[in-house]
Amino acid sequence: MVTDQRFFRRNGPYPLGEIAKRLGAGLSAGASAELMIEDIAALDAAVPGEISLFSDVKLLESCRKSRASAIITSRKLAEVVATETPLLLVDDARYAFALVGHLFHPDPPLEPGVHKAASIDPSAEIGEGSQIDAGAVISAGAKLGARCHIGPNAVIARGVVLGDDCHIGSNSSISHAVIGARVRIASNVVIGGPGFGFVASPKGALRLAQIGRVIVGDGVEMGSNCTIDRGAMGDTIIGNGTMFDNAVHIAHNVQIGRFCMIAGQIGIAGSAVIGDFVVMGGQVGVSDHIHVGRAARLAAKSGVIKDVAAGESVGGYPAVPLRQWHRQTILLRKLLGKKEV
Amino acid sequence: MVTDQRFFRRNGPYPLGEIAKRLGAGLSAGASAELMIEDIAALDAAVPGEISLFSDVKLLESCRKSRASAIITSRKLAEVVATETPLLLVDDARYAFALVGHLFHPDPPLEPGVHKAASIDPSAEIGEGSQIDAGAVISAGAKLGARCHIGPNAVIARGVVLGDDCHIGSNSSISHAVIGARVRIASNVVIGGPGFGFVASPKGALRLAQIGRVIVGDGVEMGSNCTIDRGAMGDTIIGNGTMFDNAVHIAHNVQIGRFCMIAGQIGIAGSAVIGDFVVMGGQVGVSDHIHVGRAARLAAKSGVIKDVAAGESVGGYPAVPLRQWHRQTILLRKLLGKKEV
Amino acid sequence: MVTDQRFFRRNGPYPLGEIAKRLGAGLSAGASAELMIEDIAALDAAVPGEISLFSDVKLLESCRKSRASAIITSRKLAEVVATETPLLLVDDARYAFALVGHLFHPDPPLEPGVHKAASIDPSAEIGEGSQIDAGAVISAGAKLGARCHIGPNAVIARGVVLGDDCHIGSNSSISHAVIGARVRIASNVVIGGPGFGFVASPKGALRLAQIGRVIVGDGVEMGSNCTIDRGAMGDTIIGNGTMFDNAVHIAHNVQIGRFCMIAGQIGIAGSAVIGDFVVMGGQVGVSDHIHVGRAARLAAKSGVIKDVAAGESVGGYPAVPLRQWHRQTILLRKLLGKKEV
Repeated sequence: MVTDQRFFRRNGPYPLGEIAKRLGAGLSAGASAELMIEDIAALDAAVPGEISLFSDVKLLESCRKSRASAIITSRKLAEVVATETPLLLVDDARYAFALVGHLFHPDPPLEPGVHKAASIDPSAEIGEGSQIDAGAVISAGAKLGARCHIGPNAVIARGVVLGDDCHIGSNSSISHAVIGARVRIASNVVIGGPGFGFVASPKGALRLAQIGRVIVGDGVEMGSNCTIDRGAMGDTIIGNGTMFDNAVHIAHNVQIGRFCMIAGQIGIAGSAVIGDFVVMGGQVGVSDHIHVGRAARLAAKSGVIKDVAAGESVGGYPAVPLRQWHRQTILLRKLLGKKEV
Repeated sequence: MVTDQRFFRRNGPYPLGEIAKRLGAGLSAGASAELMIEDIAALDAAVPGEISLFSDVKLLESCRKSRASAIITSRKLAEVVATETPLLLVDDARYAFALVGHLFHPDPPLEPGVHKAASIDPSAEIGEGSQIDAGAVISAGAKLGARCHIGPNAVIARGVVLGDDCHIGSNSSISHAVIGARVRIASNVVIGGPGFGFVASPKGALRLAQIGRVIVGDGVEMGSNCTIDRGAMGDTIIGNGTMFDNAVHIAHNVQIGRFCMIAGQIGIAGSAVIGDFVVMGGQVGVSDHIHVGRAARLAAKSGVIKDVAAGESVGGYPAVPLRQWHRQTILLRKLLGKKEV
Repeated sequence: MVTDQRFFRRNGPYPLGEIAKRLGAGLSAGASAELMIEDIAALDAAVPGEISLFSDVKLLESCRKSRASAIITSRKLAEVVATETPLLLVDDARYAFALVGHLFHPDPPLEPGVHKAASIDPSAEIGEGSQIDAGAVISAGAKLGARCHIGPNAVIARGVVLGDDCHIGSNSSISHAVIGARVRIASNVVIGGPGFGFVASPKGALRLAQIGRVIVGDGVEMGSNCTIDRGAMGDTIIGNGTMFDNAVHIAHNVQIGRFCMIAGQIGIAGSAVIGDFVVMGGQVGVSDHIHVGRAARLAAKSGVIKDVAAGESVGGYPAVPLRQWHRQTILLRKLLGKKEV
């Protein structure tokens, strides 16, 4: 594979020895430190000059057939593959390969400055080295840290605070939010919308005043089209290092811990509390006020209507312990096999 | 809790007596009508000077420990709590508290006028007192009522009609729509997109001309990232006072009645008809051409593939009467308990 | 029904004989070729001067009562309905009606030119006859074919390629993409966002460099608020003529074949491979690395965690062959009937 230069800049090439040094990696016997590496690629797609990853023994044949000029792997897998291709030997091959990916393909450098077609309120503060693209709107009292990038037509509403090194994607709408450093928001995301909280009234449903905020920790990343509502009273909180895939919906007053992985199209209802290191598969739904304990795992498409203990794995609708869900599935199949229905 | 002044204006303070008068509330014995109230807060979060809500006997301890200077409650709960904190006694404490929330935190006042970075077609009509923000685009023949607010980078396409006092959030796209008064649309919503209707053709699927509209009643509110398709022939219709959470998808020719509550990530397929006062939980799916009767309730994540009678509650996938769904869940658990599978 | 002229232009009127000629249709006995037809409408909604469709014998009564001046139907149904209303007799009535719909209601003609409030990078190439609306942003190196329409506030990022006759809706964000001809993208769609791929690292999850693209074939159409991530390494691929409803989420490295129908709120996880002519109902989820064979059918809300063979129909969560899923549902109902639980 050669990356498409219309979309991606590529640093390098780098000598294999320099890559090894940056990773703290060993070189396999006979590998030349002077070998020039130009890009990364998957085993199957690699062409000479590229470096690839072998971290899964199931890909042994792909590894042996790969045209990559060098391969990052673990010492243990290196013994299995027994190839003459130069190897970089590391403890954690996937992590090392990720680092090499960013070495060749760092985020594009900022082009500091404010595009003439952006609208910046005079009272907004914009940190040094920031890039504000065409059509972006930055409202009164907003405070952006250093080296922030506000994409085209993104809207930063009144009073929003961004830490240093944040990226807000095109057409995103950010309001009522205090956002940490190194937060990356993709396109068409909405942060700070009004929560879905109502009381019955003589004239139909009356929305409760939604006067809380969204607090986003450092290093959080969100995919496209996510929606994170602000708190009703009190705040919606996203912990440091938590990652969201696309189209995730977080209701008002939800609290999500640190380093969670929230897959696509998940919905978390109001006031749910999610511990640190929780992993959720796509399309999961979590009911309001539910507690999900630290490091729990929710299988894709689960409907969680009861609290989940720390470390527990659940699945199904309604969600039950994962093993129970699998047994249910098997039971139904067996029952059908036994009787004509 | 003190609301964050960067995001929310706060009216007041108000003497307790004035609040009582506006609510038609009674004051508990010994409560001073001169007591100044500065903001609202939840029982746990309140600090002196704030007024809170006690409407759920489960929060009795929180009520007793609350630092709030005054509490809104019902006469009945007032007897239970037996506190010396000044009380406002009303029939419907939650509704009263909602009113007080809007007293302290009314919607921010409009700043009438058209931002210089907005693009308004000369043939568009904009009602008196409206606010058009930076980057907003208002196309030919659009007609906006009085006191409308069009957020930054929102797009109002050709011919769209908005009633008085509408709010269209940032980055929303409105087309082919006739919208009533007091409608509040959050950010990144799409109203009026083409429906998913095709016929097979020798060259693959051919989209049917989508020449209907979206008709939105008075007082409707929609959360962020909703998508409401226009009718194919005829209209997609949303009744007065119906409320949508985030990321709801409404297909072409759906008819939704009045005062429904449509939670997050729900999808309603083409030509479904939903009666008045229907309540749907998050992630529900309703198949095309289904009828859901007045005041029916659909449990979160239900997959509704048969008509639902008025007043009925359903859940599950496929959805069945709610009690049957719960019994299924229990049955499966019991069957698993009895046999090794 | 008369289409709302605020939103839709209407060509015509056309004499019935000309419509017949364009369709290659026969006229029923006694039908006048000079009869002027002004618009299309459904059987129930038609008024005199309009042409309607009768393609479903269940609508026989509607057909007989219709006030339409002419009706398109098959020779076979023509015998059944035995009406004196003039008929256009064709082999495929639905397809013929679709063609007539586009005859009366063609896409609005482009208004070529660049709005003064658009921002076009000097290095971008814009094909002849294209229309670039207010607030649109077209970045460095982008190449648009002839007769493209870029809606208000849409963002075309660096290097993006569009074929001829593409439409990009308002507030959409397109990056890292090579898009074919006659592609129609609705509003607030995101194409080219970063995929959800991470490795664990000492500082929390580290996103893998996402250095692939999105390749979109000819004639693809996408509804509002879809999100299509670019490949991690290698590309995300959408085949010719595949149609997406609203709010579909396609993860990195997914490959979708030609002429698929992907309904609303579907999510397809990373590296899944979907064959040609696959049909998926709303809210389906497909797990990562799954293969779905040619012309398979996935029932609405299915959770697909195993490969699906070509031509197979599946449903349920987890998805099983469709007949098995229906038998499960019946079994559960029967078991509940037999025992008190």
